[in-house]
Amino acid sequence: AGKPLFSSDRYYDVTPPGVVTGLAWTPLGGAILYIETVAMTRNDTPKNGTLLTTGQLGNVMEESSKIAYTFSKNFLQCRFPVNESVRTFLSSKSIHMHIPEGAIPKDGPSAGCAMTTALLSLAMGIPVRQNLSMTGEITLTGKILPIGGVREKIIAAKRSGITTICLPLDNMKDWDELADYIREGIDVHFVDHYRSIFPIAFDYEGSELKMTEA
Amino acid sequence: AGKPLFSSDRYYDVTPPGVVTGLAWTPLGGAILYIETVAMTRNDTPKNGTLLTTGQLGNVMEESSKIAYTFSKNFLQCRFPVNESVRTFLSSKSIHMHIPEGAIPKDGPSAGCAMTTALLSLAMGIPVRQNLSMTGEITLTGKILPIGGVREKIIAAKRSGITTICLPLDNMKDWDELADYIREGIDVHFVDHYRSIFPIAFDYEGSELKMTEA
Amino acid sequence: AGKPLFSSDRYYDVTPPGVVTGLAWTPLGGAILYIETVAMTRNDTPKNGTLLTTGQLGNVMEESSKIAYTFSKNFLQCRFPVNESVRTFLSSKSIHMHIPEGAIPKDGPSAGCAMTTALLSLAMGIPVRQNLSMTGEITLTGKILPIGGVREKIIAAKRSGITTICLPLDNMKDWDELADYIREGIDVHFVDHYRSIFPIAFDYEGSELKMTEA
Repeated sequence: AGKPLFSSDRYYDVTPPGVVTGLAWTPLGGAILYIETVAMTRNDTPKNGTLLTTGQLGNVMEESSKIAYTFSKNFLQCRFPVNESVRTFLSSKSIHMHIPEGAIPKDGPSAGCAMTTALLSLAMGIPVRQNLSMTGEITLTGKILPIGGVREKIIAAKRSGITTICLPLDNMKDWDELADYIREGIDVHFVDHYRSIFPIAFDYEGSELKMTEA
Repeated sequence: AGKPLFSSDRYYDVTPPGVVTGLAWTPLGGAILYIETVAMTRNDTPKNGTLLTTGQLGNVMEESSKIAYTFSKNFLQCRFPVNESVRTFLSSKSIHMHIPEGAIPKDGPSAGCAMTTALLSLAMGIPVRQNLSMTGEITLTGKILPIGGVREKIIAAKRSGITTICLPLDNMKDWDELADYIREGIDVHFVDHYRSIFPIAFDYEGSELKMTEA
Repeated sequence: AGKPLFSSDRYYDVTPPGVVTGLAWTPLGGAILYIETVAMTRNDTPKNGTLLTTGQLGNVMEESSKIAYTFSKNFLQCRFPVNESVRTFLSSKSIHMHIPEGAIPKDGPSAGCAMTTALLSLAMGIPVRQNLSMTGEITLTGKILPIGGVREKIIAAKRSGITTICLPLDNMKDWDELADYIREGIDVHFVDHYRSIFPIAFDYEGSELKMTEA
């Protein structure tokens, strides 16, 4: 009954660097949503970065973006010790993160790992694996915590052509309870730390990720 | 019954650089509204730009202005790599965006593409095509998302002498459902990315846009 | 019934530079009000100007003051290209705008053109034409939009000795509907852009306005 809260289904055929497909739960069912990030053009000399968020994010989601931002900066520091431009990208530029659709209030911590991935993708200039989606709360050290609405989210992902999904390890039981016809065609990865998400998102055929450094 | 929420019909015969005609939906029908932008005179040395908004904008519309601002700065960066003054206009100056009439609360994301066009027009110093109006949500990467109230907005646009309209591609079905006498006399363009709006708005006969660079 | 919301009638016999007589509508009738502006003494090196407002201004009126401030700075920039002190007065100093009486909440956009005139008068150091009042919303590009309560405002203005009034062009019908005995003795000017208000306010006999430059 009623029209879906998110009118959009997939409107990115191919996601560019900085954009990641997340998964939302709504009272009317699951939906995909996009985390968009861009660096803001500034005229002044580089100073320490700031993160601007838009998209009617609630308090919890707003905090999630801050956690993703802190974690991403530290992650880049460790992974790219000698690549100055990637290592300092997030800390030297001002970043704008937006979650369309702008009129729909959104909240909850489950976009944390998708936000992190969007920021890393932007910093490296590498698109994430296509047709990949992820859901999971992230902690400041990169632990991935379980989330709700697995069934609705998986159905929405499949409807939108997603073929690979990262789920928190502690949500494995929810996955196991799904009917076979729902799980069919989805390559699922259970993760308990962000370091397991990184190679799934970025170490794919044709990716320009320099694994020698990363 | 009652007087229209927006008392104004058209009060710009010709819109100068920085001003774009948007379309609003109200409980009493559609209306045109103007997005006005000017650079603020400042006495100090250039620093990174800021955006001030007035006109009783609600939270969603306020966020729309930030998305339009980020997108416009990045768009200029890409389109005008060698024209220093245009490329850095928005990032080096402080911009004031106002939506008359000042006492009427306004909200929603659908002015996003008109706000973007106003900022680009101001930065380039080129008026937009006359008798053009547009409505559509914009995302941080320039995607144009569908909006509501198409019927009321088109009727209001025609009443005000608008002859060219940009609509989101996903609103094509709403347009197709309109009676012929409503659609008559309107040159409609369906767009799913801002790059399709730019030539409609600025590449017209007599425009000073240097397409060799842009 | 009840005492008037504004206890003051005219308490400036002669308005100094920076002060303009505006017109207010209240549930108990019209009233004149004064827009007062002064430059704030600061001990520090010049920095970009700021505008402080007091007088229990509501949100819409607060925004009006920002629009008047932006417009005035740009207007001076165009009108006084070679008079450095006038041209940069508003952008290099910090300005305080107050609307007595301090305990009475005020709101609405209709003081926009009076606020603009007060700021320009302050910057030029020239009093406005005496016994002049004005009402009208101003937009960021100087358009003057219609306002309400014309009848009550005209009656209040006459009661206070006002002899010249600027009204928005779109309020002409309201003026035309007034009885002759109300309109008698008022020199009314209908304006649709601020450039029409400027000579009425400042180009009078005895004014020190250097029209050669302005």
